[in-house]
Amino acid sequence: MPTLVLLRHGQSAWNLENRFTGWWDVDLTEQGVTEAWAAGENLRDKGYDFDQCFTSFQSRAIKTCNLALEAMGRLWLPVEKDWRLNERSYGGLTGLNKAETAAKHGDDQVKLWRRSFDVPPPPPEEGSAWDLAQDVRYKGVPIPQTESLKDTIARVLPYFDAKIAPQLRDGKRVLIAAHGNSLRALVKHLSGIADADITGLEIPTGQPLVYELDDNLRERERFYLSER
Amino acid sequence: MPTLVLLRHGQSAWNLENRFTGWWDVDLTEQGVTEAWAAGENLRDKGYDFDQCFTSFQSRAIKTCNLALEAMGRLWLPVEKDWRLNERSYGGLTGLNKAETAAKHGDDQVKLWRRSFDVPPPPPEEGSAWDLAQDVRYKGVPIPQTESLKDTIARVLPYFDAKIAPQLRDGKRVLIAAHGNSLRALVKHLSGIADADITGLEIPTGQPLVYELDDNLRERERFYLSER
Repeated sequence: MPTLVLLRHGQSAWNLENRFTGWWDVDLTEQGVTEAWAAGENLRDKGYDFDQCFTSFQSRAIKTCNLALEAMGRLWLPVEKDWRLNERSYGGLTGLNKAETAAKHGDDQVKLWRRSFDVPPPPPEEGSAWDLAQDVRYKGVPIPQTESLKDTIARVLPYFDAKIAPQLRDGKRVLIAAHGNSLRALVKHLSGIADADITGLEIPTGQPLVYELDDNLRERERFYLSER
Repeated sequence: MPTLVLLRHGQSAWNLENRFTGWWDVDLTEQGVTEAWAAGENLRDKGYDFDQCFTSFQSRAIKTCNLALEAMGRLWLPVEKDWRLNERSYGGLTGLNKAETAAKHGDDQVKLWRRSFDVPPPPPEEGSAWDLAQDVRYKGVPIPQTESLKDTIARVLPYFDAKIAPQLRDGKRVLIAAHGNSLRALVKHLSGIADADITGLEIPTGQPLVYELDDNLRERERFYLSER
Protein backbone atom coordinates (compact mmCIF):
# COMPACT_ATOMS: atom_id res chain seq x y z
CA MET A 1 0.00 0.00 0.00
CA PRO A 2 1.58 3.33 -1.04
CA THR A 3 2.46 5.51 1.94
CA LEU A 4 2.65 9.27 1.76
CA VAL A 5 3.33 11.65 4.62
CA LEU A 6 2.53 15.35 4.37
CA LEU A 7 4.35 17.72 6.70
CA ARG A 8 3.53 21.41 6.97
CA HIS A 9 6.62 23.42 7.91
CA GLY A 10 7.15 24.32 11.57
CA GLN A 11 6.15 27.73 12.90
CA SER A 12 7.65 30.59 10.90
CA ALA A 13 8.42 34.11 12.09
CA TRP A 14 5.33 35.40 10.28
CA ASN A 15 3.06 32.63 11.54
CA LEU A 16 4.01 34.00 14.96
CA GLU A 17 3.41 37.64 13.92
CA ASN A 18 0.18 36.67 12.15
CA ARG A 19 1.28 38.19 8.83
CA PHE A 20 0.38 36.97 5.33
CA THR A 21 3.51 35.20 4.07
CA GLY A 22 2.79 33.47 0.77
CA TRP A 23 5.92 33.32 -1.38
CA TRP A 24 8.02 35.51 0.91
CA ASP A 25 10.95 33.51 2.29
CA VAL A 26 10.47 33.72 6.04
CA ASP A 27 12.61 31.58 8.37
CA LEU A 28 11.45 29.14 11.03
CA THR A 29 11.23 30.34 14.62
CA GLU A 30 13.00 28.38 17.37
CA GLN A 31 9.67 26.73 18.04
CA GLY A 32 9.41 25.88 14.35
CA VAL A 33 12.83 24.20 14.47
CA THR A 34 11.74 22.23 17.54
CA GLU A 35 8.51 21.18 15.80
CA ALA A 36 10.37 19.96 12.72
CA TRP A 37 12.85 17.95 14.77
CA ALA A 38 10.03 16.45 16.88
CA ALA A 39 8.18 15.46 13.71
CA GLY A 40 11.25 13.50 12.57
CA GLU A 41 11.68 11.82 15.94
CA ASN A 42 8.01 10.88 16.01
CA LEU A 43 8.17 9.41 12.50
CA ARG A 44 11.29 7.44 13.39
CA ASP A 45 9.86 6.21 16.72
CA LYS A 46 6.68 5.00 15.03
CA GLY A 47 8.58 3.10 12.37
CA TYR A 48 8.05 5.37 9.39
CA ASP A 49 10.68 5.59 6.73
CA PHE A 50 10.99 7.13 3.27
CA ASP A 51 12.63 6.62 -0.09
CA GLN A 52 12.06 10.03 -1.64
CA CYS A 53 11.29 13.50 -0.27
CA PHE A 54 9.82 16.55 -1.93
CA THR A 55 9.77 20.13 -0.75
CA SER A 56 9.26 23.66 -2.05
CA PHE A 57 11.73 26.43 -2.94
CA GLN A 58 11.05 28.11 0.41
CA SER A 59 13.48 27.92 3.31
CA ARG A 60 10.90 27.18 6.00
CA ALA A 61 9.79 24.00 4.21
CA ILE A 62 13.31 22.95 3.15
CA LYS A 63 14.63 23.39 6.70
CA THR A 64 11.66 21.48 8.09
CA CYS A 65 12.46 18.66 5.68
CA ASN A 66 16.18 18.70 6.53
CA LEU A 67 15.59 18.84 10.29
CA ALA A 68 13.03 16.02 10.24
CA LEU A 69 15.37 13.88 8.11
CA GLU A 70 18.29 14.58 10.42
CA ALA A 71 16.19 13.57 13.45
CA MET A 72 15.32 10.34 11.60
CA GLY A 73 18.95 9.62 10.69
CA ARG A 74 17.91 10.00 7.03
CA LEU A 75 19.76 13.13 5.87
CA TRP A 76 21.08 11.13 2.94
CA LEU A 77 17.65 10.60 1.36
CA PRO A 78 17.05 12.33 -1.98
CA VAL A 79 15.13 15.61 -1.69
CA GLU A 80 13.59 17.22 -4.77
CA LYS A 81 12.79 20.92 -4.44
CA ASP A 82 10.26 22.62 -6.69
CA TRP A 83 8.49 25.98 -6.72
CA ARG A 84 5.22 24.23 -7.53
CA LEU A 85 5.04 23.12 -3.90
CA ASN A 86 5.38 26.72 -2.66
CA GLU A 87 2.75 28.34 -0.46
CA ARG A 88 -0.21 30.05 -2.10
CA SER A 89 0.79 33.55 -3.22
CA TYR A 90 -1.06 36.16 -1.17
CA GLY A 91 -0.33 38.90 -3.71
CA GLY A 92 -0.87 42.37 -2.28
CA LEU A 93 -1.56 41.00 1.20
CA THR A 94 1.99 39.66 1.52
CA GLY A 95 3.76 41.14 4.52
CA LEU A 96 0.57 42.59 6.06
CA ASN A 97 -0.56 41.76 9.56
CA LYS A 98 -3.93 40.05 9.46
CA ALA A 99 -5.50 42.47 11.96
CA GLU A 100 -4.23 45.51 9.99
CA THR A 101 -5.58 44.00 6.80
CA ALA A 102 -8.99 43.52 8.40
CA ALA A 103 -8.96 47.14 9.64
CA LYS A 104 -8.07 48.35 6.12
CA HIS A 105 -10.29 46.14 3.97
CA GLY A 106 -12.94 44.99 6.44
CA ASP A 107 -13.37 41.62 8.11
CA ASP A 108 -15.69 40.22 5.48
CA GLN A 109 -13.34 41.01 2.60
CA VAL A 110 -10.36 39.44 4.37
CA LYS A 111 -12.41 36.38 5.25
CA LEU A 112 -13.38 36.10 1.59
CA TRP A 113 -9.76 36.27 0.42
CA ARG A 114 -8.65 33.77 3.03
CA ARG A 115 -11.52 31.38 2.78
CA SER A 116 -12.99 31.52 -0.70
CA PHE A 117 -11.93 28.83 -3.11
CA ASP A 118 -11.46 30.91 -6.21
CA VAL A 119 -11.19 34.60 -5.27
CA PRO A 120 -7.54 35.73 -5.28
CA PRO A 121 -6.34 38.65 -3.12
CA PRO A 122 -5.45 41.85 -5.01
CA PRO A 123 -2.10 41.85 -6.86
CA PRO A 124 0.86 43.65 -5.21
CA GLU A 125 0.94 47.43 -5.45
CA GLU A 126 3.50 49.07 -7.74
CA GLY A 127 6.98 49.03 -6.14
CA SER A 128 5.97 46.55 -3.47
CA ALA A 129 8.74 45.62 -1.02
CA TRP A 130 7.72 41.98 -1.48
CA ASP A 131 8.40 41.77 -5.21
CA LEU A 132 10.22 38.54 -6.14
CA ALA A 133 11.04 39.42 -9.75
CA GLN A 134 14.75 39.88 -8.90
CA ASP A 135 15.03 36.73 -6.79
CA VAL A 136 17.35 34.38 -8.75
CA ARG A 137 15.58 31.32 -7.41
CA TYR A 138 12.58 32.19 -9.55
CA LYS A 139 14.50 32.77 -12.76
CA GLY A 140 12.38 31.18 -15.47
CA VAL A 141 9.49 30.56 -13.07
CA PRO A 142 6.08 32.13 -13.86
CA ILE A 143 5.84 33.94 -10.50
CA PRO A 144 2.15 34.33 -9.67
CA GLN A 145 1.10 37.90 -8.86
CA THR A 146 -1.62 36.52 -6.61
CA GLU A 147 -3.41 33.20 -6.21
CA SER A 148 -6.70 31.76 -5.05
CA LEU A 149 -6.58 28.25 -3.62
CA LYS A 150 -7.91 27.11 -6.99
CA ASP A 151 -4.90 28.70 -8.69
CA THR A 152 -2.57 27.00 -6.21
CA ILE A 153 -4.16 23.64 -6.94
CA ALA A 154 -3.69 24.26 -10.66
CA ARG A 155 0.11 24.23 -10.26
CA VAL A 156 0.45 21.73 -7.38
CA LEU A 157 -1.52 18.88 -8.95
CA PRO A 158 0.31 18.69 -12.28
CA TYR A 159 3.56 18.47 -10.31
CA PHE A 160 2.09 15.75 -8.10
CA ASP A 161 0.96 13.81 -11.16
CA ALA A 162 4.24 14.22 -13.02
CA LYS A 163 6.79 13.73 -10.25
CA ILE A 164 5.29 12.34 -7.05
CA ALA A 165 2.57 9.93 -8.21
CA PRO A 166 5.02 7.84 -10.32
CA GLN A 167 7.21 7.34 -7.24
CA LEU A 168 4.20 6.23 -5.17
CA ARG A 169 3.10 3.86 -7.93
CA ASP A 170 6.62 2.51 -7.91
CA GLY A 171 6.21 1.58 -4.25
CA LYS A 172 8.35 4.42 -2.95
CA ARG A 173 7.57 5.84 0.47
CA VAL A 174 7.24 9.59 0.06
CA LEU A 175 7.55 12.59 2.39
CA ILE A 176 6.31 16.01 1.24
CA ALA A 177 7.38 18.97 3.39
CA ALA A 178 5.43 21.99 2.23
CA HIS A 179 2.90 24.67 3.16
CA GLY A 180 -0.64 25.12 4.43
CA ASN A 181 -2.16 25.70 1.01
CA SER A 182 0.04 23.53 -1.21
CA LEU A 183 -0.81 20.70 1.20
CA ARG A 184 -4.51 21.63 1.15
CA ALA A 185 -4.31 21.22 -2.62
CA LEU A 186 -3.01 17.69 -2.16
CA VAL A 187 -5.49 16.79 0.59
CA LYS A 188 -8.38 18.00 -1.56
CA HIS A 189 -7.21 15.78 -4.40
CA LEU A 190 -6.28 12.70 -2.37
CA SER A 191 -9.36 12.77 -0.14
CA GLY A 192 -11.90 14.12 -2.63
CA ILE A 193 -12.91 17.14 -0.52
CA ALA A 194 -15.42 19.61 -2.00
CA ASP A 195 -14.38 23.14 -3.05
CA ALA A 196 -16.53 24.65 -0.32
CA ASP A 197 -15.04 22.50 2.43
CA ILE A 198 -11.31 22.51 1.66
CA THR A 199 -10.67 26.15 2.60
CA GLY A 200 -11.81 25.49 6.16
CA LEU A 201 -9.52 22.49 6.61
CA GLU A 202 -6.66 23.50 8.92
CA ILE A 203 -3.35 21.63 8.70
CA PRO A 204 -1.31 22.26 11.85
CA THR A 205 2.42 23.09 11.60
CA GLY A 206 4.93 20.31 12.18
CA GLN A 207 2.35 17.49 12.47
CA PRO A 208 2.97 14.59 10.08
CA LEU A 209 -0.26 13.75 8.23
CA VAL A 210 -0.11 10.13 7.14
CA TYR A 211 -1.92 8.86 4.04
CA GLU A 212 -2.46 5.24 3.26
CA LEU A 213 -3.48 5.26 -0.39
CA ASP A 214 -5.37 2.86 -2.61
CA ASP A 215 -4.12 1.72 -6.00
CA ASN A 216 -5.56 4.84 -7.61
CA LEU A 217 -3.58 6.95 -5.15
CA ARG A 218 -6.66 8.14 -3.32
CA GLU A 219 -7.24 8.12 0.44
CA ARG A 220 -7.85 4.77 2.02
CA GLU A 221 -7.08 6.26 5.41
CA ARG A 222 -5.52 9.48 6.70
CA PHE A 223 -4.52 10.45 10.21
CA TYR A 224 -2.17 12.71 12.10
CA LEU A 225 0.72 10.76 13.52
CA SER A 226 0.17 12.44 16.90
CA GLU A 227 -3.22 10.66 17.12
CA ARG A 228 -1.69 7.18 16.99
CA MET B 1 35.02 29.51 -17.69
CA PRO B 2 33.58 26.60 -15.65
CA THR B 3 33.71 27.25 -11.91
CA LEU B 4 33.87 24.49 -9.35
CA VAL B 5 34.19 24.89 -5.60
CA LEU B 6 35.28 22.01 -3.38
CA LEU B 7 34.38 22.17 0.30
CA ARG B 8 35.61 19.67 2.87
CA HIS B 9 33.07 19.24 5.68
CA GLY B 10 33.58 21.23 8.89
CA GLN B 11 35.25 19.65 11.91
CA SER B 12 33.60 16.39 12.96
CA ALA B 13 33.53 14.82 16.41
CA TRP B 14 36.18 12.32 15.33
CA ASN B 15 38.38 14.92 13.64
CA LEU B 16 38.48 16.44 17.13
CA GLU B 17 39.16 13.08 18.84
CA ASN B 18 41.72 12.19 16.16
CA ARG B 19 40.00 8.91 15.28
CA PHE B 20 39.85 7.22 11.89
CA THR B 21 36.35 7.91 10.60
CA GLY B 22 36.04 6.74 7.01
CA TRP B 23 32.49 5.67 6.24
CA TRP B 24 31.26 5.96 9.84
CA ASP B 25 28.57 8.64 10.08
CA VAL B 26 29.99 11.08 12.63
CA ASP B 27 28.30 14.44 13.22
CA LEU B 28 29.82 17.91 12.99
CA THR B 29 31.07 19.56 16.18
CA GLU B 30 29.85 23.04 17.08
CA GLN B 31 33.06 24.34 15.53
CA GLY B 32 32.29 22.32 12.40
CA VAL B 33 28.85 23.95 12.17
CA THR B 34 30.45 27.37 12.56
CA GLU B 35 33.01 26.56 9.85
CA ALA B 36 30.32 25.45 7.41
CA TRP B 37 28.26 28.57 8.01
CA ALA B 38 31.32 30.81 7.64
CA ALA B 39 32.22 29.09 4.36
CA GLY B 40 28.77 29.97 3.00
CA GLU B 41 29.01 33.58 4.19
CA ASN B 42 32.46 33.93 2.65
CA LEU B 43 31.27 32.51 -0.69
CA ARG B 44 28.27 34.86 -0.69
CA ASP B 45 30.35 37.90 0.30
CA LYS B 46 32.86 37.23 -2.47
CA GLY B 47 30.16 36.91 -5.10
CA TYR B 48 30.18 33.15 -5.63
CA ASP B 49 26.99 31.41 -6.59
CA PHE B 50 26.00 27.93 -7.75
CA ASP B 51 23.52 26.11 -9.93
CA GLN B 52 24.05 22.56 -8.72
CA CYS B 53 25.48 21.00 -5.57
CA PHE B 54 26.82 17.52 -4.89
CA THR B 55 27.53 15.81 -1.61
CA SER B 56 28.07 12.36 -0.13
CA PHE B 57 25.76 10.06 1.84
CA GLN B 58 27.44 11.14 5.07
CA SER B 59 25.80 13.56 7.49
CA ARG B 60 28.88 15.71 8.12
CA ALA B 61 29.17 16.58 4.43
CA ILE B 62 25.40 16.93 3.86
CA LYS B 63 25.07 19.26 6.86
CA THR B 64 28.09 21.27 5.71
CA CYS B 65 26.41 21.64 2.33
CA ASN B 66 23.05 22.60 3.85
CA LEU B 67 24.57 25.09 6.30
CA ALA B 68 26.73 26.77 3.66
CA LEU B 69 23.71 27.02 1.32
CA GLU B 70 21.56 28.47 4.08
CA ALA B 71 24.23 31.09 4.87
CA MET B 72 24.27 31.97 1.14
CA GLY B 73 20.46 32.23 0.94
CA ARG B 74 20.59 29.29 -1.48
CA LEU B 75 18.85 26.46 0.40
CA TRP B 76 16.61 25.95 -2.62
CA LEU B 77 19.48 24.85 -4.91
CA PRO B 78 19.40 21.23 -6.07
CA VAL B 79 21.67 18.92 -4.08
CA GLU B 80 22.54 15.47 -5.38
CA LYS B 81 23.79 12.99 -2.78
CA ASP B 82 25.84 9.96 -3.71
CA TRP B 83 27.89 7.38 -1.83
CA ARG B 84 30.67 7.69 -4.40
CA LEU B 85 31.62 11.02 -2.80
CA ASN B 86 31.97 9.37 0.64
CA GLU B 87 35.22 9.50 2.58
CA ARG B 88 37.84 6.82 1.95
CA SER B 89 36.97 3.66 3.90
CA TYR B 90 39.53 3.08 6.64
CA GLY B 91 38.50 -0.57 7.05
CA GLY B 92 39.75 -2.08 10.29
CA LEU B 93 41.13 1.27 11.48
CA THR B 94 37.65 2.82 11.63
CA GLY B 95 36.85 4.07 15.12
CA LEU B 96 40.45 3.78 16.36
CA ASN B 97 42.33 6.70 17.81
CA LYS B 98 45.36 7.47 15.70
CA ALA B 99 47.76 7.35 18.67
CA GLU B 100 46.36 3.98 19.81
CA THR B 101 46.70 2.66 16.30
CA ALA B 102 50.34 3.74 16.19
CA ALA B 103 50.99 2.06 19.54
CA LYS B 104 49.39 -1.17 18.27
CA HIS B 105 50.75 -1.34 14.73
CA GLY B 106 53.80 0.93 14.91
CA ASP B 107 54.27 4.43 13.57
CA ASP B 108 55.69 3.33 10.26
CA GLN B 109 52.81 0.99 9.45
CA VAL B 110 50.21 3.65 10.29
CA LYS B 111 52.07 6.22 8.24
CA LEU B 112 52.07 3.75 5.35
CA TRP B 113 48.31 3.20 5.58
CA ARG B 114 47.63 6.92 5.85
CA ARG B 115 50.07 8.14 3.29
CA SER B 116 50.64 5.43 0.72
CA PHE B 117 48.75 5.75 -2.53
CA ASP B 118 47.73 2.15 -3.02
CA VAL B 119 48.08 0.23 0.26
CA PRO B 120 44.69 -0.19 1.97
CA PRO B 121 44.38 -0.60 5.74
CA PRO B 122 43.38 -4.08 6.95
CA PRO B 123 39.69 -5.03 6.56
CA PRO B 124 37.46 -4.84 9.68
CA GLU B 125 37.68 -7.67 12.18
CA GLU B 126 34.82 -10.15 12.43
CA GLY B 127 31.87 -8.64 14.35
CA SER B 128 33.26 -5.11 14.16
CA ALA B 129 31.13 -2.45 15.84
CA TRP B 130 31.62 -0.32 12.72
CA ASP B 131 30.02 -2.71 10.25
CA LEU B 132 27.69 -0.89 7.83
CA ALA B 133 26.10 -3.96 6.23
CA GLN B 134 22.78 -3.30 8.04
CA ASP B 135 22.70 0.43 7.31
CA VAL B 136 19.74 0.97 4.95
CA ARG B 137 21.45 3.89 3.26
CA TYR B 138 23.90 1.44 1.68
CA LYS B 139 21.30 -1.01 0.42
CA GLY B 140 22.50 -2.01 -3.03
CA VAL B 141 25.82 -0.19 -2.58
CA PRO B 142 29.05 -2.23 -2.85
CA ILE B 143 30.31 -1.18 0.59
CA PRO B 144 34.12 -1.27 0.48
CA GLN B 145 35.69 -3.32 3.26
CA THR B 146 38.74 -1.05 3.13
CA GLU B 147 40.22 1.38 0.61
CA SER B 148 43.52 2.86 -0.45
CA LEU B 149 43.41 6.35 -1.92
CA LYS B 150 43.72 4.66 -5.31
CA ASP B 151 40.56 2.65 -4.56
CA THR B 152 38.77 5.83 -3.53
CA ILE B 153 39.76 7.53 -6.77
CA ALA B 154 38.43 4.52 -8.70
CA ARG B 155 34.88 5.24 -7.50
CA VAL B 156 35.00 9.05 -7.25
CA LEU B 157 36.21 9.76 -10.80
CA PRO B 158 33.59 7.74 -12.70
CA TYR B 159 30.94 9.62 -10.72
CA PHE B 160 32.62 12.94 -11.52
CA ASP B 161 32.74 12.04 -15.21
CA ALA B 162 29.15 10.79 -15.33
CA LYS B 163 27.33 13.36 -13.20
CA ILE B 164 29.44 16.41 -12.42
CA ALA B 165 31.51 17.02 -15.55
CA PRO B 166 28.41 17.28 -17.82
CA GLN B 167 27.02 20.02 -15.57
CA LEU B 168 30.31 21.94 -15.72
CA ARG B 169 30.44 21.57 -19.51
CA ASP B 170 26.91 22.90 -19.56
CA GLY B 171 28.12 26.07 -17.85
CA LYS B 172 26.69 25.21 -14.45
CA ARG B 173 28.46 26.52 -11.38
CA VAL B 174 29.05 23.56 -9.10
CA LEU B 175 29.67 23.10 -5.37
CA ILE B 176 30.92 19.75 -4.05
CA ALA B 177 30.76 19.29 -0.27
CA ALA B 178 32.65 16.13 0.59
CA HIS B 179 35.60 14.62 2.45
CA GLY B 180 39.38 14.84 2.73
CA ASN B 181 40.05 11.87 0.47
CA SER B 182 37.15 12.07 -1.96
CA LEU B 183 38.26 15.66 -2.56
CA ARG B 184 41.91 14.57 -2.87
CA ALA B 185 40.74 12.24 -5.63
CA LEU B 186 39.22 15.19 -7.48
CA VAL B 187 42.20 17.50 -6.88
CA LYS B 188 44.57 14.83 -8.21
CA HIS B 189 42.51 14.53 -11.36
CA LEU B 190 41.79 18.21 -11.94
CA SER B 191 45.33 19.41 -11.17
CA GLY B 192 47.30 16.44 -12.53
CA ILE B 193 49.10 15.67 -9.25
CA ALA B 194 51.40 12.64 -9.13
CA ASP B 195 50.52 9.53 -7.10
CA ALA B 196 53.45 10.17 -4.76
CA ASP B 197 52.44 13.76 -4.06
CA ILE B 198 48.69 13.59 -3.62
CA THR B 199 48.69 11.75 -0.29
CA GLY B 200 50.60 14.60 1.33
CA LEU B 201 48.19 17.26 0.12
CA GLU B 202 46.12 18.47 3.07
CA ILE B 203 42.69 19.99 2.45
CA PRO B 204 41.57 21.97 5.51
CA THR B 205 38.02 21.62 6.86
CA GLY B 206 35.46 24.25 5.94
CA GLN B 207 37.72 26.18 3.50
CA PRO B 208 36.21 26.62 0.03
CA LEU B 209 38.76 25.56 -2.62
CA VAL B 210 37.97 27.38 -5.86
CA TYR B 211 38.80 25.89 -9.25
CA GLU B 212 38.74 27.84 -12.46
CA LEU B 213 38.80 25.17 -15.14
CA ASP B 214 39.81 25.09 -18.76
CA ASP B 215 37.64 23.65 -21.51
CA ASN B 216 38.97 20.17 -20.77
CA LEU B 217 37.90 20.60 -17.15
CA ARG B 218 41.46 20.73 -15.86
CA GLU B 219 42.94 23.32 -13.51
CA ARG B 220 43.60 26.72 -14.97
CA GLU B 221 43.84 28.14 -11.45
CA ARG B 222 42.99 26.95 -7.96
CA PHE B 223 43.01 28.83 -4.67
CA TYR B 224 41.47 28.81 -1.23
CA LEU B 225 38.84 31.48 -0.93
CA SER B 226 40.39 32.60 2.35
CA GLU B 227 43.53 33.65 0.40
CA ARG B 228 41.65 36.18 -1.72
